[in-house]
Amino acid sequence: MNRNEKSPFCFREVYQDQRSFLELEVSRWVYSRETSFQKIDIFDTVSHGRVLALDGIVQTMERWEFMYHEMIAHVPLQICERPKHVLVIGGGDGGTIREALKHPSVESAVLCEIDRDVVEAAKTYLPTLSHALSDPRVSCVFEDGVAYLKGSSQTWDAILIDSTDPTAGEGGHLFTDAFYALCRDRLVPGGVCVAQTENPIYDREWMRTAYRRIAAAFPTAGIYLGFSPQYPSGFWTYSIGYRSQDGQNKPDFYQLSPEAVRRIPPHLRYYTSDIHSAAFQIPPFLSDYLA
Amino acid sequence: MNRNEKSPFCFREVYQDQRSFLELEVSRWVYSRETSFQKIDIFDTVSHGRVLALDGIVQTMERWEFMYHEMIAHVPLQICERPKHVLVIGGGDGGTIREALKHPSVESAVLCEIDRDVVEAAKTYLPTLSHALSDPRVSCVFEDGVAYLKGSSQTWDAILIDSTDPTAGEGGHLFTDAFYALCRDRLVPGGVCVAQTENPIYDREWMRTAYRRIAAAFPTAGIYLGFSPQYPSGFWTYSIGYRSQDGQNKPDFYQLSPEAVRRIPPHLRYYTSDIHSAAFQIPPFLSDYLA
Repeated sequence: MNRNEKSPFCFREVYQDQRSFLELEVSRWVYSRETSFQKIDIFDTVSHGRVLALDGIVQTMERWEFMYHEMIAHVPLQICERPKHVLVIGGGDGGTIREALKHPSVESAVLCEIDRDVVEAAKTYLPTLSHALSDPRVSCVFEDGVAYLKGSSQTWDAILIDSTDPTAGEGGHLFTDAFYALCRDRLVPGGVCVAQTENPIYDREWMRTAYRRIAAAFPTAGIYLGFSPQYPSGFWTYSIGYRSQDGQNKPDFYQLSPEAVRRIPPHLRYYTSDIHSAAFQIPPFLSDYLA
Repeated sequence: MNRNEKSPFCFREVYQDQRSFLELEVSRWVYSRETSFQKIDIFDTVSHGRVLALDGIVQTMERWEFMYHEMIAHVPLQICERPKHVLVIGGGDGGTIREALKHPSVESAVLCEIDRDVVEAAKTYLPTLSHALSDPRVSCVFEDGVAYLKGSSQTWDAILIDSTDPTAGEGGHLFTDAFYALCRDRLVPGGVCVAQTENPIYDREWMRTAYRRIAAAFPTAGIYLGFSPQYPSGFWTYSIGYRSQDGQNKPDFYQLSPEAVRRIPPHLRYYTSDIHSAAFQIPPFLSDYLA
């Protein structure tokens, strides 16, 4: 092989166990900036497309992000009856908002991202994710998610918590009891809240903590799974809470109504109604751990 | 932090794209040997337990191997009607045989592993996997899988191809048309063959090639998915072929009969009848690619 064929630069992510590491060959450095909140890096790779990292942790691989973003958005939005108003907390790359806007009933979506620079960088360098942020239905608020919810009495059909991991940078306070209770109080009856809740391989204690806190805050809660090869282990969990309507039975997260199936946006690449049901099947090692 | 708290040794796996890498901190070297077929390494890690690597590729992480071994064994064995005779090709660590023996109908199991040293090393250093190899129902044959099948007319209820990856060492000839046809010819009517067929992130061309070859060799074939965090991307595929019985309808891989559900071995940690059905739900990006 030509000695110069490969790039000599590597990105190195330290996984949460501090003893396992992912290295990615960098074909081109695109953008780096130290903001008041975190270090943003954007770089190109041959195998994964463009990558966004915050404080050295991969947030988005352009080639695989659809799996994560479809699962964090479509599972809760399909459980909602015709969601109109959606709040995304975190998610500054725009991928979660992009998926939410595919639901024709959505009239407005707010992105509440603490770090304006993430959104600006995504607008410039990650257009396949961020293009949705210029949709007229979208507003961006650059504020801490807790402060935003405390400062407003607006209610939502769905709140999607697309945070960084709880041990890194600014994500931690989005994993508290108080925050989940605040989310519940800002949902309309029949509304849903979902949070990415890490993986059972490298970060299982936080996964369990977050799931249990959501289960404590919401009368009806569940957890579902999806492949997410952009993240450590690829084994991703999402925890979901539901604010009941008076006199209503508990919703069956697992099974969509035929009407809901007809509402699934076209041209998705990961999510289907069958994947929806399959995602709620939890292996015994995991349900035992969460119990 | 104490400068000596962490081990200065790392194992480094080059993923199939040659541009992504996994590094694991090694807490203790256990065993290394260069055999006539490959390099065997066994080492301990804090996060993943004991690890077996062949030619620098992780084959087994003791802490997570149950997901892979339960899925490669129980899905096909549950599809069989009361499997009696099972052949495992590869799988020298013993994990697949261990799972197969949990089915009470299994009367005999042969492990056909080309490299005797892998089995010997597993017997000494990976007892939680290899203990099954001393079960009186098990015979070990140290021979190439193709040669073994050609040299014997014995037929099997299930053939489980637990090979290394097709681009590494000795695994490649277990991914050929001729080999899959040979497996089909050595199945009883109603028998099944399954192969691990890599992942859609780092090795998608081989995954597709293997799936298509199995689909060409068998009148009824399918693919199913499972989380396998010990392997690159964690997104693992298994391809399955079924040898029909005369006059029989195509089996429904997805749905187990109530009788089959009652036969599921107790105390599994990943596999359930619901996980079985969920595993056959394939995201559109993958079914489109395989079509």
